[in-house]
Amino acid sequence: MKAPEATKRLHSRRRGLTIVFTGNGKGKSTAAMGMCLRAWGHDYKIFMLQFIKGTWKTGEQRAIARLPGWERVHYGKGFTWLKRATPEEHRQAAREALAEARARLLSGEYDVVFLDEILYAVRNELLTLEDVLDLVAARPRPVHLILTGRGAPQELIDVADLVTEMREIKHPYRVGVKAQKGIEF
Amino acid sequence: MKAPEATKRLHSRRRGLTIVFTGNGKGKSTAAMGMCLRAWGHDYKIFMLQFIKGTWKTGEQRAIARLPGWERVHYGKGFTWLKRATPEEHRQAAREALAEARARLLSGEYDVVFLDEILYAVRNELLTLEDVLDLVAARPRPVHLILTGRGAPQELIDVADLVTEMREIKHPYRVGVKAQKGIEF
Repeated sequence: MKAPEATKRLHSRRRGLTIVFTGNGKGKSTAAMGMCLRAWGHDYKIFMLQFIKGTWKTGEQRAIARLPGWERVHYGKGFTWLKRATPEEHRQAAREALAEARARLLSGEYDVVFLDEILYAVRNELLTLEDVLDLVAARPRPVHLILTGRGAPQELIDVADLVTEMREIKHPYRVGVKAQKGIEF
Repeated sequence: MKAPEATKRLHSRRRGLTIVFTGNGKGKSTAAMGMCLRAWGHDYKIFMLQFIKGTWKTGEQRAIARLPGWERVHYGKGFTWLKRATPEEHRQAAREALAEARARLLSGEYDVVFLDEILYAVRNELLTLEDVLDLVAARPRPVHLILTGRGAPQELIDVADLVTEMREIKHPYRVGVKAQKGIEF
């Protein structure tokens, strides 16, 4: 009798990693996307949850829509959503997102779970650091968990396997160049 | 009469960017891959030239092979190639790669040109900084040019639009964990 795919995945011998991309520079979510693309090339199943990105059709959303086996869910309503709802509504949305992230992480359906800007939710007190540390502790061993956002707390760095800080050296906004389609969105 | 695609691209009003991912941390090539994926989602044409990555089938190579409109060429013979050929052969290969990069950059066929680890070639004196600065100066205005590698010289930062340094905060190799398929290759 063959084990179902999900069970097999949870009993794989693979040692998954907890990976954090943080810092004030460009390329946190972008590097996570590249990592997921590499994983996708190996036919890994990917679940991506965006805590703050908008609902508009960006390049990455259009790309992912064409990549079978890479699922994407977003919570929040774009960068301006904090202005549009009550703090309680935001916290509620963040808690729902967290619950979904946890369910997917434990499902055995995915090789990679990518929680984009989860640290933004922590910095804005929609989630607690404890919520994130609980999630990391619950990660099944074979699953790779990728977390992004500025200001990764030391407690998270302590439990992560791979942490990179993106430092902004130079940004075109500073010299008056607008965000470029295809590159920044 | 319709202008050919290449000519249209070179006369686009878009203001392309010169983008550099540098530093000692993970995620330079990976962020560039993510950026290319986003561009690909907008149906941009991408040319990627790898100055040192190996010839084996990595996740990114397998992924790119499935993405029409994203071309990939590599020079060099893997991370060990420096041991296998004479310095003169390496310099020759790097010069050929540079000539190809320049031809593609100027061709009008691509919206994004990604030269992976070109700064590695500079650090190893296979190319000069002047070679890279000439390339940046030759970039047609609408084309996005992405360069990666450790140790971006200040002269390159000065002429680039967007520069991010990836700083290694924590790496699993340090604690004895091997490189993970699907994540690091």
